[in-house]
Order: sequence, then C-alpha cells, then structure tokens
Amino acid sequence: MLLPMFDDVRAAHDRIRAYVHRTPTLTCATLDRLAGARLWFKCENFQKVGAFKIRGATNAVFSLTKDEARLGVATHSSGNHGAALAQAASWLGTKACVVMPRNALRAKRHAVQSYGGEIVWCDPGMEARNETLSRIVDRSGMTVVHPFNDPKVIAGQGTAALELLEDVGGLDAIIAPVGGGGLISGTAIACAAISPEIAVYAAEPANADDAQRSLRAGHILEPDNPDTIADGLRASLGTLTFEVIKAHVKDIVTVSETEIVSAMRLVWERMKIIIEPSAAVAVAAVLAHPAVFRDRRVGVIVTGGNVDLDRLPWQTTDQAPAAGGDSPRAGG
Amino acid sequence: MLLPMFDDVRAAHDRIRAYVHRTPTLTCATLDRLAGARLWFKCENFQKVGAFKIRGATNAVFSLTKDEARLGVATHSSGNHGAALAQAASWLGTKACVVMPRNALRAKRHAVQSYGGEIVWCDPGMEARNETLSRIVDRSGMTVVHPFNDPKVIAGQGTAALELLEDVGGLDAIIAPVGGGGLISGTAIACAAISPEIAVYAAEPANADDAQRSLRAGHILEPDNPDTIADGLRASLGTLTFEVIKAHVKDIVTVSETEIVSAMRLVWERMKIIIEPSAAVAVAAVLAHPAVFRDRRVGVIVTGGNVDLDRLPWQTTDQAPAAGGDSPRAGG
Repeated sequence: MLLPMFDDVRAAHDRIRAYVHRTPTLTCATLDRLAGARLWFKCENFQKVGAFKIRGATNAVFSLTKDEARLGVATHSSGNHGAALAQAASWLGTKACVVMPRNALRAKRHAVQSYGGEIVWCDPGMEARNETLSRIVDRSGMTVVHPFNDPKVIAGQGTAALELLEDVGGLDAIIAPVGGGGLISGTAIACAAISPEIAVYAAEPANADDAQRSLRAGHILEPDNPDTIADGLRASLGTLTFEVIKAHVKDIVTVSETEIVSAMRLVWERMKIIIEPSAAVAVAAVLAHPAVFRDRRVGVIVTGGNVDLDRLPWQTTDQAPAAGGDSPRAGG
Repeated sequence: MLLPMFDDVRAAHDRIRAYVHRTPTLTCATLDRLAGARLWFKCENFQKVGAFKIRGATNAVFSLTKDEARLGVATHSSGNHGAALAQAASWLGTKACVVMPRNALRAKRHAVQSYGGEIVWCDPGMEARNETLSRIVDRSGMTVVHPFNDPKVIAGQGTAALELLEDVGGLDAIIAPVGGGGLISGTAIACAAISPEIAVYAAEPANADDAQRSLRAGHILEPDNPDTIADGLRASLGTLTFEVIKAHVKDIVTVSETEIVSAMRLVWERMKIIIEPSAAVAVAAVLAHPAVFRDRRVGVIVTGGNVDLDRLPWQTTDQAPAAGGDSPRAGG
C-alpha cells in the first residue's frame, strides 16, 4: 500500500463533504487560562456517528469500484469505526459486516445495528477477530476497510485538520490523540502540505504508550496490556501510520489516567460539550505539558463524544479504569 | 415599573454584546425526526456563566447611573441569576451582594464567589430572603436587580430570541421555559415586534404549573409546593412578566418529570451538549406535544448548562426528583 499524499486528503474532502458534518471550531476562555495558551477545539464529537471515524470510513466506502461496492465492506471493531463503516455503507446502499468481540459494549453494538450494519461475533482477542474477518471476506468477497492502516482511511481522517486549518490561521501546533494512528497521520499529512511550520503532536495515555515507545525505538512495539479508560487508543500503530508519524510528527506526549478524567470533566463543566475519554487525552496533554504548549496557538482535535452516560469515569475512577468490557487493542 | 418595549430589547443588545457570547444555533437530525418537526436550538448553555441569565443581569448593571454603579447591586437567588449578577458587576467594576439560603447548592455558591460576588446567608424561604435583602439594601444603598420582574432584565433576556430570529428565518413557533417569566417575556416582546406571525409557547414542569394555571385563571397563582428537578423554574410569575405573557404568549404547555429527564439525556446523547434540567423542559415540550409542534419550524431556547456532574438525574430519578437542596421558588 502506498502512503497517502496531501492530494488524497483534498480528494477525500471533496468525496465526503456531502455526507459528513463540517464540525465547528470552538474556543474557551477558561481552558485558555488554565493552559496558558490559545486553544481551538475542532469538535468531531459533533460529527456524524459522534466521532471523526466517519470521515475515513466514508472516504474508503465511496472510493470502492462498482464491483466492490456491490459486494460490501467488512471490518473488525469494538468501537466507533464499526459504527462509522456501517453508516457509510448505508449511505452508499451496500452492506457492512462488523466483526465484534462478544464482550463489546452494548452501546457500540447498538450503534452498528442502528446504522444497518451486520454484526458477526467472535471471541475476544486480535487473533479471533482477524480469523473471523478473513473467513467472512473469503466467503463474501467483501472489501476490508481497516480502522487505520489504510490510505483511504488516513486521507479521510486528515480532512478534520484541513477544515481546522481553513478556520484558524497562524497555529503554532496541532495535537490529536494516537491509537492506531489514522487520525494523527492524516493530520500530519495535511499540516505538512498546508503549513509545515506547525508542530504536530500526538497525545497518548501513559498506560498505553506504545506509540511513544515505538517512535523512540524506531520500530513498531505492541501495547503492553494497555489499561486505559481511553478505549479508542488501545491499538498499536500500523505500518503506514508509523511511516507518516516518523516523518511528520514532532513528538508524542503522554498523560495519566487521572489527567484524562480531569480534562474530560473540565471540558464538560466549562465548555458544556460531551467528549469521550479518548478525546480528553489531547486536552489533558495540553494542560499537562506547559513546557511544550504554553503561549502557543494550539489546534486540538476533539475526536468524539460517545460515552455511556450510566458509567461516567469520575464515578468509577476508584475502580479499574479500563473496565469497559472492551478487549485490549480495540482500535475501532 | 413600565413594561419593556422592543426598543428596550434592541438597546439591551447594543449594551451587552461586548460582554456576552453570541451563542450558536444548532440543529440535530435525530431530534427533528423524533419531534416530527424542524428544530433550531439557541444554545445559551454555551453562554457566559452557563446560562441566558447573564443577558438580563448585564443589561441591568450597565444601565445603572453613575451613583448607583458606585454603590453596587444586590439580589436574592439560589441559582444562575446570582452568578450572572456577580459576573456583570465585576465587569462594571462594582460590588454584587447575593442573598442565598443556607441550603443552596455548593456549586451555585462557588459560582457566585468565583465571579467576585459577596454572599449573605439567610434561612430558606422567600420571607427570610426578602427580609435579608431589604436589610442589606437599606444599609448599603445597593440597587436591587430582581431575577425576572425588572424591565431591564426582561429586555436583556429578549436578546437571545433577537439573535435566534436573525439566524433563522421563517420560524412558525418559538418555545422557552417559564419560571418567573423573564425569558419568555423578553422572547415574546422580540417576536411580537419582529415576526408577529410566530407563535410563542412557554414550557413548564407539570409539577410546577403555576404559570399555566395563572394564565387560565387570569391572575397570578403561587406554585403549589413545586417538586420538580427543573430547579430554575420553581418561581411564580411577576406582575410585569404576567402582563407580557397574557398579551403575547399563545399557550403554556407542561411536561412530566420523566419527560424532562428523558429529553435532557437525549440531548446529551445525540447532540453531545450539556443542558440542565430547566433547559430540557422546552425540548421535552416539543417532543411531548406533537399536536402543537409537528411539521412546524420551531426555535427552542436552550436556557443553560449548569449541572452537578456528580448527581445526574438518571441516576436519582427513583429518588425524590426535587431533592436538590434548593428551597422552592428559587427564581434565580
């Protein structure tokens, strides 16, 4: 697979703009004061399906050939990517099949089904997921749309930064969370082409710091039993995303579980918007690393807003923070 | 006191626009589908101090004479009006004194203090509040800014509808919650002048339906021990607001406590924005009264977003819904 280029991000934007929201960019005086910086929040929590994932999924689905489109798409996901792919396939009028571990959160399950996706259950763990997906693809001829290690997906995710850079001039830095790396790769490709002077940072839970360790080691390391509330960030990097990160990401900074939950609550309380723990990781990073961000103009990509309102993290932080029922390395 | 006119709303807008946010107007396809209507949400939950109350308070404070401004302002409030008045006074560089019942919520107390307001404690109940406030005013010469029965406050609250009508054309109806009636009065005055064809509705908890009963009886009735989670809507109407409502509000519709909590949760889940129970009352009304709103273009004023994230109503609905520690007839 070829690395996506900036032209692919532009093409993705043209391809998906009729389907996805152009989300607003918000500011907050209190957050600015606490960070000692000027922050612009690109609010993908307001996006269709509640997360930026719809951008990449829609770009991939609407890039299919006619024959591919007839047969449909498949993926494995315990999170937002499955729902996004189901929604995108439904827009195109084709099928989506999502392999999910039996212990996936009920809300994620319902999301896939509500967009018309078919769920195929598997045992938890990546091996069972991959095997189940292979079996489906062999039988059905469906096209696999990987959650992040796919040039079309990466290009699609890059459209969020494209819009942010159109909305806000003169940024010094952009930060986005990193799990499998689709979003940060697309973001980095967009920035490198439009405003190469912008420093691109990735934010990661300290409890799932495989991307930071990979960047330092020079090769992809697997997450070491990632125990984080940021369930969207438990995947390891892909070959494509790692190449882009090495080339274009200035640094990867980490935050503690406590910092993630505090940042999430702070945004709810002061900005009155609902963001999910994985999205709070980037906000937490700006607050926790003043040496990097103070006095700078920073774009923050707020990745999603899908939370279980019956299980808020400040009610359960004294329990196991990763007790979300998701298997590790969700990546979806 | 004279009833405010539309010119007063326009003047208020000019007076306060440098201080308050021009809040966004949002839409939501899911809410539209559920309501069978087209809805535009004027998001005062994103407003300064988290509620529309800052509009009226700022208009009142910045309308003071020089001598009045020197002496400061005072009010009683167990809710958002106290915080709003403290913030407005701080912008003007004068003092605000807020009489609060000893059982006021800690979050409300902190809000007043964080904006530099001075709190004077009193026993719960309107009599103690009024006595305490009178004593302070007699001693200090401060100007009382009533939470709603004040022409400047009413005119200020009307600026939210003014902006909504600038943003969205062709509305058939506007709905806002009614407690003491400041917001709905200002809204009705703005609509009557700009687009008299728009039907103005007020929404009220069935458990605090004194405004509906007052409108039908033709005179102001006191709330009958209002036991509602919508703590901002427990006040009875004022003489001024009742006059405006009689003249310009088409009807007052009520919703149950269950409908309030469901609507609040629905907005959190689907719109990803945080609204408080009093704000959810208007959303619930649109969903609960299809005979009134179906197939119409409806503006909904989302009044505020100040909630205690440690005590969400869907966690406590099986307990007493009004157990918020506020005394009845808060009005603030």
